Amino acid sequence: MQYNKVSEAQIKTLQTILGAPFITTGKDDLEKYSRDFTENLSYTPDVVVKPGTPEEVSAICKFCYEHNIPFTPRGAGTGLSGGALPVFGGIVISMERFNKIIEIDEHNFQATVEPGVINEEFQNAVIEKGLFYPPDPASKGSCFLGGNIAHASGGPRALKYGTTRDYVLNLEVVLPTGEIIWTGANTLKYSTGYNLTHLLIGSEGTLGIVTKIVFKLIPYPTQTFLLLASFASPEKACEAVNGIFLAGCSPSACEFVEPEGFRLAAKVMDIAFECKQNVEAYLLIEVDGNDTETLMNACERINEVLDKYQSIEVLLAQSADEKEYFWKLRRMIGAATKHNNEYKEEDTVVPRAALPTLYRGVKTIEKKYGFRTVCYGHAGDGNMHVNILKDNMTDEMWNNQLPNAIREIFTLCKELKGTISGEHGIGLVQKQYMNIVMPEIQLEIMRKIKQVFDPKGLLNPGKIF
Amino acid sequence: MQYNKVSEAQIKTLQTILGAPFITTGKDDLEKYSRDFTENLSYTPDVVVKPGTPEEVSAICKFCYEHNIPFTPRGAGTGLSGGALPVFGGIVISMERFNKIIEIDEHNFQATVEPGVINEEFQNAVIEKGLFYPPDPASKGSCFLGGNIAHASGGPRALKYGTTRDYVLNLEVVLPTGEIIWTGANTLKYSTGYNLTHLLIGSEGTLGIVTKIVFKLIPYPTQTFLLLASFASPEKACEAVNGIFLAGCSPSACEFVEPEGFRLAAKVMDIAFECKQNVEAYLLIEVDGNDTETLMNACERINEVLDKYQSIEVLLAQSADEKEYFWKLRRMIGAATKHNNEYKEEDTVVPRAALPTLYRGVKTIEKKYGFRTVCYGHAGDGNMHVNILKDNMTDEMWNNQLPNAIREIFTLCKELKGTISGEHGIGLVQKQYMNIVMPEIQLEIMRKIKQVFDPKGLLNPGKIF
Repeated sequence: MQYNKVSEAQIKTLQTILGAPFITTGKDDLEKYSRDFTENLSYTPDVVVKPGTPEEVSAICKFCYEHNIPFTPRGAGTGLSGGALPVFGGIVISMERFNKIIEIDEHNFQATVEPGVINEEFQNAVIEKGLFYPPDPASKGSCFLGGNIAHASGGPRALKYGTTRDYVLNLEVVLPTGEIIWTGANTLKYSTGYNLTHLLIGSEGTLGIVTKIVFKLIPYPTQTFLLLASFASPEKACEAVNGIFLAGCSPSACEFVEPEGFRLAAKVMDIAFECKQNVEAYLLIEVDGNDTETLMNACERINEVLDKYQSIEVLLAQSADEKEYFWKLRRMIGAATKHNNEYKEEDTVVPRAALPTLYRGVKTIEKKYGFRTVCYGHAGDGNMHVNILKDNMTDEMWNNQLPNAIREIFTLCKELKGTISGEHGIGLVQKQYMNIVMPEIQLEIMRKIKQVFDPKGLLNPGKIF
Repeated sequence: MQYNKVSEAQIKTLQTILGAPFITTGKDDLEKYSRDFTENLSYTPDVVVKPGTPEEVSAICKFCYEHNIPFTPRGAGTGLSGGALPVFGGIVISMERFNKIIEIDEHNFQATVEPGVINEEFQNAVIEKGLFYPPDPASKGSCFLGGNIAHASGGPRALKYGTTRDYVLNLEVVLPTGEIIWTGANTLKYSTGYNLTHLLIGSEGTLGIVTKIVFKLIPYPTQTFLLLASFASPEKACEAVNGIFLAGCSPSACEFVEPEGFRLAAKVMDIAFECKQNVEAYLLIEVDGNDTETLMNACERINEVLDKYQSIEVLLAQSADEKEYFWKLRRMIGAATKHNNEYKEEDTVVPRAALPTLYRGVKTIEKKYGFRTVCYGHAGDGNMHVNILKDNMTDEMWNNQLPNAIREIFTLCKELKGTISGEHGIGLVQKQYMNIVMPEIQLEIMRKIKQVFDPKGLLNPGKIF
């Protein structure tokens, strides 16, 4: 496919379709939309458009199809795999005007929303009705629900409640060729042909553009308790994670953090964080529910497990503020790493009990190649983020040697029956590693599925495979 | 595609591939494999083969591809939409030898099994390790796990625990063209390209043949309480279902049954069942957990709700035997209806709060066309099975008029934002109704996805669309 650039005349046409205020060609604006939260990448679009209705999205798709112009949907730009970057230029379709919560249906425990709603705003809106939307990516304060669907996003609470995938009932989608469909029904069970809803979730904006979402909700658990445990041995901390589950506990979150993660976060946030000298790892463990006594009992049992795995100290957060302090630190780690250093974030995931082996393996590979990592993440799900810091690594090393190290890390994930992304997606930056975890025939199936939806390959080209 | 019949010479070749004992051509045997549990349908295959390894399945696929022979995988034959019927003859691939539980991984709460394992045997095996595999179709005593995946099967406990889909981590699949792949990873989170695992689930054996399954498991809840509530008004019973959820209760099952359902089941099982004169509907409600007091409290709260919706009487099952008595009655309704009468089973599903409207609508359509239905099913999920009895309906009415009535019922489901199958699938018998719930473009996408996996259209042809 020969991709075309957007001409001046075509920009005028776009203005008549959407209205001039919603077409952006200013240099500074284009620069802003040329980046997301992934490393230091920049791909400048020819134009940014901001449709407000599914019909307008459809009109843009048809326009692009007519003129062979690549087009890339964009949420809040918080992605970590380059999924929203317009690699081949063309049009960026910003979904920021799709910011309405259309309905919270308290009778059916459902909500219908637009994809440009911010995750946390949606969570807060349903809490007001006594309902709960659990998925909570670290970027929840800014990321869009549409982006969460694109990446099948998780977050700490995925451990107990599952990922975004588990809460999507139905999607209104504009196909690349412009047709508007609903992928399923607003029902808890669905066995009506191939499940296009689940195929769209995690497809990183390459099969269609989501314009409405029907979510399932659950009753809101009113109480949480939060424990912070410190360990001298990161491997013991990893082992303790599985120990908690084997002891019959079901925490709502169980996060592993290397001290450097908290240190970097505290620095960026300009708040105090004291790490005792012999501490080499933390576990941040949350339990939730509605009954104080049950939760206290759960904390006690978890405490016993932590003791068995040689924790140094276990703090129980004493107030809502203290809980929020630790969660804020935890959520800031990714952004803080990026703020301090050029970095690459790898989203390794393995079966939970294999986490200690993965951790040891990462540290061995790190030594072999001579770089530094900050490891942290959703240990209860076996999902560890490995932030590789550039520090004073040469560009040669960074660009040419490091991919070999990443390949070794991902090969280890595969050996442990895991994979190369648990929640960040493949996008642009991980696609070179896809052949570690799947054979060519499987990639070929994915490419052909892409062709079914997008025969000209114009929607978000250059991603996944 | 011109489908070929299997020749005598080809049967000899199949014997050399699998061994003679695993090739069946006897008339009685072929008759047995010509049917499943759907109505009175029969399609005789040319030959039934019983492979024992993925490599043997692969060899059969390649053989069929070389000779343009249609091939249809079959589990236990308990399906209710004709999904396992060899509509165009050819080869039936019976998966009955894939009956091994390969591993129960107590450390990761996972199990690896073959698709020919019976659902209930798997449930019992994991309970022995303190683990829980919740999906429990009514046919759990005989249905295969592979069939459950084909239909994204549910069952009563889907209400609290989700359907089969929610427990599948990874699938080993033989593609129609013979390649063997794993669709994902053994991880709780997965964001690594298009989710082929979820695409395969619910695809009714039309995209590939599952040869191994990795399931997620959860801790086993040790206690259940079971309530049977009777109502003079079926609509009030339906309304009470939503009332239970609005009151903050989360039962593990909430089943609606018309008295005729229990009566038919009791008759077939030859056991006593007494239905008081003014009772027109039952709700069978289960709560589960590990703490007696919590469960007793939940039962009390539910009882208050039932009272509010004018229940006549609420029984609390007093023993394990009594619980099993009610569940056996419930599970037998489908088979009992089939035993008593020619029938069609419709698998309507709507958002939970729309259930009373659906029920009223079904009864209005029933009166208009002059037939009789037995309604029952997973009310908590808004999933109501409508069994239409032939009684003394003429064949003309049954074959030519009844589809119009079914179309009206399904159109109502669609209007209520529901769909035409919650857990039974589309298979052969419901495909004529697919255009009620989706536009041609969506069916076309499904057909093209089918072509991606199965370019010659030989695997289980004639199903879904």
